[in-house]
Amino acid sequence: MDLLKQRIVKDGKVFPGNILKVSGFLNHLIDSSLMKEIGKEVCRLFEGEKITKILTIEASGIAIACAVASELNVPVLFAKKHKSSNITNTVYSAQVKSYTHGNVNTVVVEKECLSSDDRVLIVDDFLAHGESLRGLIDLVKQAGAEVVGAAIAIEKGYQGGGDALRAEGYKVESLAIVESMGEDGITFRN
Amino acid sequence: MDLLKQRIVKDGKVFPGNILKVSGFLNHLIDSSLMKEIGKEVCRLFEGEKITKILTIEASGIAIACAVASELNVPVLFAKKHKSSNITNTVYSAQVKSYTHGNVNTVVVEKECLSSDDRVLIVDDFLAHGESLRGLIDLVKQAGAEVVGAAIAIEKGYQGGGDALRAEGYKVESLAIVESMGEDGITFRN
Repeated sequence: MDLLKQRIVKDGKVFPGNILKVSGFLNHLIDSSLMKEIGKEVCRLFEGEKITKILTIEASGIAIACAVASELNVPVLFAKKHKSSNITNTVYSAQVKSYTHGNVNTVVVEKECLSSDDRVLIVDDFLAHGESLRGLIDLVKQAGAEVVGAAIAIEKGYQGGGDALRAEGYKVESLAIVESMGEDGITFRN
Repeated sequence: MDLLKQRIVKDGKVFPGNILKVSGFLNHLIDSSLMKEIGKEVCRLFEGEKITKILTIEASGIAIACAVASELNVPVLFAKKHKSSNITNTVYSAQVKSYTHGNVNTVVVEKECLSSDDRVLIVDDFLAHGESLRGLIDLVKQAGAEVVGAAIAIEKGYQGGGDALRAEGYKVESLAIVESMGEDGITFRN
């Protein structure tokens, strides 16, 4: 998606430790116009898929998920990072490893919010190693629902999470795939 | 807003400890159509206010904030709950007491995302004692920006936070104000 790539080049900031900061337009301050265009593009990429629900993870996935859901006119469900180790039997839960923070989060959704009839599109702002995405896929499968695919704003292609999931047969559509980034700029996959 | 009140009566669940659970349509599973109507209604309530930015707090405020921002065509900024005690000088920070969880959170926004030119509408899903709202007002004031007012989906009127802020001169518009709730149902303020 050229609009997003141009915006990453213009307003994204690359920091040591492989960090691409897009908090000025994507996941802290959020550009509403860009969100609408992202929603439309994801809708186009998954046309005809009969999606019944969008699943994302708090907090930075929610805005993009809502933009997609608004176009598709389906509900959004966001998985919550669980604070306590006390998981009740009213939720589905999965473990998600964070490479950025070096810890493991438990994420949960309430069972009554996801049913075996659902055809779920997973939406998130970033995809790197794919740990969040695998956790969300796990939640959908626990409910006996169908994973239609995943729509991601920015994928770090060189970290391999997206390609591994594609090799397993998942439809993963990323609007911008970063192949390299550093002092001499950002290169996207064609 | 009748549509929201009807939905609360139909799908909201009242639990002991003064808890109104609306996770089936407002803050876990999110009804996109309802969000659009909420966005339009808030837009109507603050017409002519020349709002430049929406401020909310992660995670459950984000969906409503995005719906309002989409109608107004302005950016959303969401305050993040800060994990460490190490606050850098690149952020504005405020303390927010949680009556539900019995703790105090530090919330932050990046300074470069909020400027003294901004006219800010604060949006959140719930208003009870008003602690979150006061924290967000604090962030806006630290930036030297203007608080246009606050738009809330559900206010617990009997907990007094909204009325206290109104008495201080803030324009606080809540789409549904619960005056009482219990086994015999939910009563709204007219």
